[in-house]
Amino acid sequence: MSDWVYVRDIAASEGQVVTVKGWLYNRTDKGKLQFLLVRDGSGLIQAVVSEKDIGPEIFAEVQRLTQESAVEVTGIVHADRRAPGGFELQVQDVHVVQFVQDYPITPKEHGVEFLMARRHLWIRSSRQHAILRIRAEITRAVRAWLDGHGFLNMDTPILTPSSCEDSTTLFQTDYFGEPAYLTQSGQLYNEATIGAFGRVYCFGPTFRAEKSKTRRHLTEFWMVEPEMAYVDLDGCMEVEEQFVSYIVQSVLANRADDLKVLERDTSRLEKVVPPFPRISYDDAVKLLNDKGLDFKWGDDFGAPHETVIGESFDRPVFVHHYPTAIKAFYMEEDPQRPEVCLSVDLLASEGYGEIIGGGQRTASYELLEQRIKHHHLTREAYEWYLDLRRYGSVPHSGFGLGIERTVAWLCQIQHIRETIPFPRMLERIYP
Amino acid sequence: MSDWVYVRDIAASEGQVVTVKGWLYNRTDKGKLQFLLVRDGSGLIQAVVSEKDIGPEIFAEVQRLTQESAVEVTGIVHADRRAPGGFELQVQDVHVVQFVQDYPITPKEHGVEFLMARRHLWIRSSRQHAILRIRAEITRAVRAWLDGHGFLNMDTPILTPSSCEDSTTLFQTDYFGEPAYLTQSGQLYNEATIGAFGRVYCFGPTFRAEKSKTRRHLTEFWMVEPEMAYVDLDGCMEVEEQFVSYIVQSVLANRADDLKVLERDTSRLEKVVPPFPRISYDDAVKLLNDKGLDFKWGDDFGAPHETVIGESFDRPVFVHHYPTAIKAFYMEEDPQRPEVCLSVDLLASEGYGEIIGGGQRTASYELLEQRIKHHHLTREAYEWYLDLRRYGSVPHSGFGLGIERTVAWLCQIQHIRETIPFPRMLERIYP
Repeated sequence: MSDWVYVRDIAASEGQVVTVKGWLYNRTDKGKLQFLLVRDGSGLIQAVVSEKDIGPEIFAEVQRLTQESAVEVTGIVHADRRAPGGFELQVQDVHVVQFVQDYPITPKEHGVEFLMARRHLWIRSSRQHAILRIRAEITRAVRAWLDGHGFLNMDTPILTPSSCEDSTTLFQTDYFGEPAYLTQSGQLYNEATIGAFGRVYCFGPTFRAEKSKTRRHLTEFWMVEPEMAYVDLDGCMEVEEQFVSYIVQSVLANRADDLKVLERDTSRLEKVVPPFPRISYDDAVKLLNDKGLDFKWGDDFGAPHETVIGESFDRPVFVHHYPTAIKAFYMEEDPQRPEVCLSVDLLASEGYGEIIGGGQRTASYELLEQRIKHHHLTREAYEWYLDLRRYGSVPHSGFGLGIERTVAWLCQIQHIRETIPFPRMLERIYP
Repeated sequence: MSDWVYVRDIAASEGQVVTVKGWLYNRTDKGKLQFLLVRDGSGLIQAVVSEKDIGPEIFAEVQRLTQESAVEVTGIVHADRRAPGGFELQVQDVHVVQFVQDYPITPKEHGVEFLMARRHLWIRSSRQHAILRIRAEITRAVRAWLDGHGFLNMDTPILTPSSCEDSTTLFQTDYFGEPAYLTQSGQLYNEATIGAFGRVYCFGPTFRAEKSKTRRHLTEFWMVEPEMAYVDLDGCMEVEEQFVSYIVQSVLANRADDLKVLERDTSRLEKVVPPFPRISYDDAVKLLNDKGLDFKWGDDFGAPHETVIGESFDRPVFVHHYPTAIKAFYMEEDPQRPEVCLSVDLLASEGYGEIIGGGQRTASYELLEQRIKHHHLTREAYEWYLDLRRYGSVPHSGFGLGIERTVAWLCQIQHIRETIPFPRMLERIYP
């Protein structure tokens, strides 16, 4: 029995006989030679099968091998500069685990609806595979940076009795006779856990029952939300630019192969290092007007506005001090100018729009109480949140990074449906 | 302006003037000397305030400081063997951010319902703080081990059109006119992603609308579920014992202080190293009968049975080959003896019961089709899952580790409600 190795680790077995276990990605028939391209999830390797090495019986099986058939291939590892990955297998034995007939996704073009209905298979295709590997690296980098900078992971609840932001887009469920809602953000709970841990983050799924069918919206998406006690708006921006730069540079360093599969131009990503430019909402409005866009102070930016602002800089740009009226009830007002608040959004470069929303939260009990009234929120549901201002209230800030938008940006893809293994959208909950 | 440092990092500032920003945990009044115990989320430090150092005005403020008041304390860092943590601050300045009145949780005894209704504050108490820090370390260790062993994190959906296990305990929501359910497991989706990535894991919240009110049940809990292509039952157990041992040893190494707060006897945890004992369900039944318990072959273990089996070994014990009839529809049958299946549960030591369920999944299309019929599952909902057996089906295994049960075991606590920041139970969805 030879050792089972993953293609990722094959270099360590040069000159040895090993077994690769995977699926047939492609086969090239050269008569007495068969070239198998085998994928095992960790990489692709070419396996060269010669009839004289393995005998006519197994060779006949190899000649019948179809796309996605499950195979165990045993052979000697040879370095070969021309081979994808730099190594190939000179095959000594092939064990067919399953012959596959009529695999539905072929190298020809398929429509998106066809592929989405077969998402459980589509993820095996090289582009989707690369995107989801980059997603996993983003998740790893997010946690590595936060864990390494004193943030404790505190899981916040999914089922909540009240809403954090937009109550018109809540998924509801029956919680033993009472209504409960799927969370849209863990932030309010983060504001409690910083009272115990100083710096925290939650990282989990969030939900929006949004009836819009756009290339930027999912009903279920993942968000990481760091929160920090004793940190103000400026401190928040400093953390954000370090954090985002680390994520981008980690993907460049650890997923170069996958970026190549996607034909991603990485020169723009290499520029994503601190400091990021910072402009006020006021200046962003001027910028839009100067570029000839009709935009009034007090309105919220739409995707086209975000694109124009983002494209005006060579790296992600902070826009801070939005009008208080268009931001959430918990935002801290600018003490000098209460019509704007200490909020900050981060707009990605290359037109990918907002990837972070955040800022400084209201520390004052009185102000928060007014806001809850003003926004017609149920006082009882927020009683515990008011407690946080009664018992040791401090200046504090935090932000939420959308994972899927970050994946879309770094992979330079147009539609967010490819950024998550099983997207949930207005008309899509299968598979 | 002196530098802001976290208590965790204070050793590096010995002899320097620094500022700690946090909350008053305790104050001891010795007349012209006040001893403040300040917590900042990363640790506790004693700050010694002398009237002659800071003047009568600030000293008077310090004398009024109450529990949980928010304070910034500036002083020189002195090594002091007697001090908690080994360092103390000789205070030069105190800035009171907020005076707190009537903090509801005092050193006196409070009832559990009182504390649960104030969970957002209770987590600041030393025991809860220690438990949740250990939880965060378990999460970190889980991901570090999996990321380091070739497992890719693939987020599986929370909103699903069909149920994986018990359809009587599903939370339901209206998904734009269709019913959707909150996931009970990401496993079926993991079985799809292994086809693309070989080794994967999902790690997120799962839900059970269970009407039971026990110390072992939450309605919302976190689970990590690794899945591996080309791995059989034995291979699965090998991975599990390496994985669990790493988690336990990481907590021992990195959370010694917190285990001390909990007065956890760590000698039993130190023994948690591979290999773990492995017994068949048949032998477990014999063991129970030998110990005088009335238990019939074919029944499922309850908590008392798991306790007796677990307590018979000095480390976690695998119980494998359960009766097919009491396990989920996707379990692979033993080919020699189809009345038992290739399942395995891991029972924790010290009576903490099942922390992992898993095993080898059915690879055969025909058998899976029969099972779906036999269990009266909706064929259409599982069509994609059947596809996984049509297109490159291979032997595969996986398992799910419950985070809250692991926290309870490692912290040696009786009730699972303390293992998660904001527990969700039959009668508890606030705060």
